[in-house]
Amino acid sequence: MSTVPMILSRRLRPSPFEQRAIENGATQFSLYNKMILPLMYESYEKSYEHLCKHVQLWDVACQRQVEIVGPDALRLTELITPRDISKCAVGQCMYAPLCDENGGIINDPIIIRVGEDRFWLSIADSDVCLWVKGVAYGRGFDVRVFEPDVSPLAIQGPKADDLMAEAVGEHTRDIKFFWFIDETVVGTPVKIARSGWSGQGGFEVYLQDSSKGNELWDFFWDIGQKYNVAAGCPNLIERIETGLKSYGSDMRIENNPFEAALDRYIDIDKEAEYMARDALLKVREEGVKRRLVNLFIDGEDMAPMRADWPVLGDDSRQIGIVTSKARSSRFGTNIAFAIVDASHMAPGTSVRVDADGDVRGAQVKTDKWTDA
Amino acid sequence: MSTVPMILSRRLRPSPFEQRAIENGATQFSLYNKMILPLMYESYEKSYEHLCKHVQLWDVACQRQVEIVGPDALRLTELITPRDISKCAVGQCMYAPLCDENGGIINDPIIIRVGEDRFWLSIADSDVCLWVKGVAYGRGFDVRVFEPDVSPLAIQGPKADDLMAEAVGEHTRDIKFFWFIDETVVGTPVKIARSGWSGQGGFEVYLQDSSKGNELWDFFWDIGQKYNVAAGCPNLIERIETGLKSYGSDMRIENNPFEAALDRYIDIDKEAEYMARDALLKVREEGVKRRLVNLFIDGEDMAPMRADWPVLGDDSRQIGIVTSKARSSRFGTNIAFAIVDASHMAPGTSVRVDADGDVRGAQVKTDKWTDA
Repeated sequence: MSTVPMILSRRLRPSPFEQRAIENGATQFSLYNKMILPLMYESYEKSYEHLCKHVQLWDVACQRQVEIVGPDALRLTELITPRDISKCAVGQCMYAPLCDENGGIINDPIIIRVGEDRFWLSIADSDVCLWVKGVAYGRGFDVRVFEPDVSPLAIQGPKADDLMAEAVGEHTRDIKFFWFIDETVVGTPVKIARSGWSGQGGFEVYLQDSSKGNELWDFFWDIGQKYNVAAGCPNLIERIETGLKSYGSDMRIENNPFEAALDRYIDIDKEAEYMARDALLKVREEGVKRRLVNLFIDGEDMAPMRADWPVLGDDSRQIGIVTSKARSSRFGTNIAFAIVDASHMAPGTSVRVDADGDVRGAQVKTDKWTDA
Repeated sequence: MSTVPMILSRRLRPSPFEQRAIENGATQFSLYNKMILPLMYESYEKSYEHLCKHVQLWDVACQRQVEIVGPDALRLTELITPRDISKCAVGQCMYAPLCDENGGIINDPIIIRVGEDRFWLSIADSDVCLWVKGVAYGRGFDVRVFEPDVSPLAIQGPKADDLMAEAVGEHTRDIKFFWFIDETVVGTPVKIARSGWSGQGGFEVYLQDSSKGNELWDFFWDIGQKYNVAAGCPNLIERIETGLKSYGSDMRIENNPFEAALDRYIDIDKEAEYMARDALLKVREEGVKRRLVNLFIDGEDMAPMRADWPVLGDDSRQIGIVTSKARSSRFGTNIAFAIVDASHMAPGTSVRVDADGDVRGAQVKTDKWTDA
């Protein structure tokens, strides 16, 4: 069983781009931040090939924003992440794990500095808004925390630059990686950031009026025809190859950023106060007990994962679990993320994976899929 | 379109009772607190009829618990709700809207007093755990807030008492409404509360070891054979007839408890500190601007709602939205909840509903479905 029928109700919020996604072939979906997320067009393989060659429009409106605005906005944003946000200029974006007082990851948003005292957290799948509201209330900070009407439309793929240049202007080619500019498109204000959940390059366009979803889609869609544009979505194969972790699958609140292999996105000695400091200093001192690693799994293609697949050590003792997996034609094998005991985290380590009774050999790789 | 295929991934948590629910005919699902919730067996109508006559087992594991434990547990629990929790004895349950500093409803759990300094919030669909963690951190309270391994199995219907008495003992007949007892069933500790999301009576059994889902199900299932037990789920028709509101559909963070018609579940003059006090006192003084009401909608059965249906006043001005609807054979008409402007909230008021272009007459009813 890889899909089940999901009943739509008001509780499952529609996306402003959903109608166009469905018209253009979306057949399977997920729910993400209580909003519909298209996740399948034709097949993972065909979508992957197209994404790596052309350009796609993605309905990622479910990547909701949490706005933090007011005199204490920077102080609060610093408090909830071990990343040094003082280095984030207005107009810049930063990938930043949010961590609680135990060092546990609450979410791994892109933090967008919209103004001096105004941030958007462009979030993965958890109610960050509630957590940040709670912290702000508890500390008595002078801020407002809420979910604004903002819906990202991603434009991803090697031809995204050409499409954006023709649609919005040549100056968009100069947008640096993880920076954004303000524009007006189809008569409505948008922010255009060079970012997105693939390794193929492109943009995220932050629509700020959900009634304009169809118009924004159609604008890029029409101009995109000469670039062989297609509707697409975050691609399981591509995101694992590229090393993009999915909150909820590959990391959860029980994991800290060291375990989740996010070391390079945190600055645990930063000056500003942040709530995870003591917990993370302790992890750094003691070392991690387990860690998210890349795995090659031997043999033919495998059925989709539903239950957790155990990772086994030499004596068949369970030393971890697979958290995501896909078939990679680039590597000609099964690729996966797994959380394994520190004893088995070194690239080159041989392990086994119990895929619902089908036990296969597997090798730990570096995050570049090499042996060392 | 009333369902779409939902891709299962590790991010969408399985329930401990899911396998049995599927084996016994669950065909359609929702996602609730990031966990699968079976929502359809055969048809709403057949399930409804069975529920009102016999007894059903419901997989409602997605009704997750948030545990608050420690010296400040009562103080924190009081802080997050306008209900007077000091009146909740150990062993008792209380339905209590949680409200933020604006009076907005964060969730509407049943609060279970598990111990003097230990509460479970048995929650609707929002990450209450994150919000409460944030508040506790911000205020520096001496508590632990987390999601324990607790999964409710509901046993609902008029024969639930007989089934429970035979399965666990005659003393279970004496469990008072919204109280619980501790028992050991299939060798594992459970709490059995007289509660549940229907008006047909019954229990919720709080399993505390998710590896025992099948055993707990089978235990009640086998004994239930003589009571014509069936697998079931929260039933759309029954819950609207009974007046049970669904968080996310019928109320959201933008609604306060007066708007959501939850007046009788709050004690806004309670002694303990709570964060919504000022906001709710203001609403009481000024009166509500809009309110959740019961509606009869004229005519034949209607297709499932996807988009919000506008409620129209005399001059075709929009004065509200329908939030849930079902076909009721008991009333021989379409029944609905709607949030309407205060000008149109009085029982007996005539309005119209625009159901995707199909405009029907409708009447505001009391919460007992009468005219006054």
